[in-house]
Amino acid sequence: MQQLRVHNFAISLDGYGTGEGRAKGVFFGHAGERLHEWMIDTAVWQEGGSRGVDNAFAAQYQQGFGAEIMGAGKFGYPGWHDDPDWKGPWGANPPFHTPVFVMTRRPRPSLKMEGGTTFHFVDAPPEKVLEMAKEAADGHDVRLGGGATVIRQFLTAGLVDHMHLAVVPIVLGRGVNLWDGLEGIERNFAVEAISSPSGVTHLTFTRTTS
Amino acid sequence: MQQLRVHNFAISLDGYGTGEGRAKGVFFGHAGERLHEWMIDTAVWQEGGSRGVDNAFAAQYQQGFGAEIMGAGKFGYPGWHDDPDWKGPWGANPPFHTPVFVMTRRPRPSLKMEGGTTFHFVDAPPEKVLEMAKEAADGHDVRLGGGATVIRQFLTAGLVDHMHLAVVPIVLGRGVNLWDGLEGIERNFAVEAISSPSGVTHLTFTRTTS
Repeated sequence: MQQLRVHNFAISLDGYGTGEGRAKGVFFGHAGERLHEWMIDTAVWQEGGSRGVDNAFAAQYQQGFGAEIMGAGKFGYPGWHDDPDWKGPWGANPPFHTPVFVMTRRPRPSLKMEGGTTFHFVDAPPEKVLEMAKEAADGHDVRLGGGATVIRQFLTAGLVDHMHLAVVPIVLGRGVNLWDGLEGIERNFAVEAISSPSGVTHLTFTRTTS
Repeated sequence: MQQLRVHNFAISLDGYGTGEGRAKGVFFGHAGERLHEWMIDTAVWQEGGSRGVDNAFAAQYQQGFGAEIMGAGKFGYPGWHDDPDWKGPWGANPPFHTPVFVMTRRPRPSLKMEGGTTFHFVDAPPEKVLEMAKEAADGHDVRLGGGATVIRQFLTAGLVDHMHLAVVPIVLGRGVNLWDGLEGIERNFAVEAISSPSGVTHLTFTRTTS
């Protein structure tokens, strides 16, 4: 059974997955890199990095995926739709190495990058996008890459099989909040929490309903 | 040095310290008892209860306090000000056993209960209330009992020395949110996180600024 999984999605104590004031080169707004330092410090991300619980979680990001789904917000900055040359913030060889489905109201032609990543731009509801991604994933799982708005959409539609969140001990105060409109969502999942010496708490939501 | 400390203050994943729809007998609104089950299951609260990390934290609630400060919301339900016989939701022998300062715009005469608890009703700013409570505490610490609104007030005023929060893995969606207006508050504290097998994550904020 192919699964739809969220991995390494970082939020602040108050639930923000990104800050306010997003722009080209400032992809997380006033949050800066603070939501992702825990990840950058691991062996998955750099030689000599930590190999504790943060690394164990970070590593799952790459395990078993054949496609990714992401929102238009993750692909760029507010305004990228008007830049025909925009190819995402990851450079020539993005870290996905699979087909990536970018959900947007303003699709453009598919974009083949180095290293196996191809961006497909789709204007379709979550169920339909998941169907396309599963077919493209060729038997492997599909990663739901965020941002918060897209994760909320798929949670609300009951399409998420597993979700790993990293709660970072900062209070961002503003931005895009993952929890908005998700009252009671825990009832559909087995929830585990494990804190790391880095100060981050990893939460996993594993679907219990079918 | 007398400290102002918060203990056992439970919030949902999305930061709510209480739910919506509070009323007489429904003191946490639609949250019910879900924010406090972790505490009720400990040896501090019941014979044969757990003696792990939840209990270690729960026990600190009673250690070293000579007074408590609470908000009008914690003392009762919306409307208690109009009930002259209201003595709080805890029965004849409340679990404080010290002077308790209830912050309210509509003070009433002090109320002496069994077991050493006396409620004093005060209409004053946080600094002033803390001063009164410290004097009454006779050298011991002062507990800041909540709710969320009052904790926010004291945090904003820079008066909190230590704060223990218990993050319960539920999404309440509505109620009173602890984090509102506290952007960047972590900069004044050393923050630790430790998860319990119960699913709760204990957060401690220890003041690093003077």
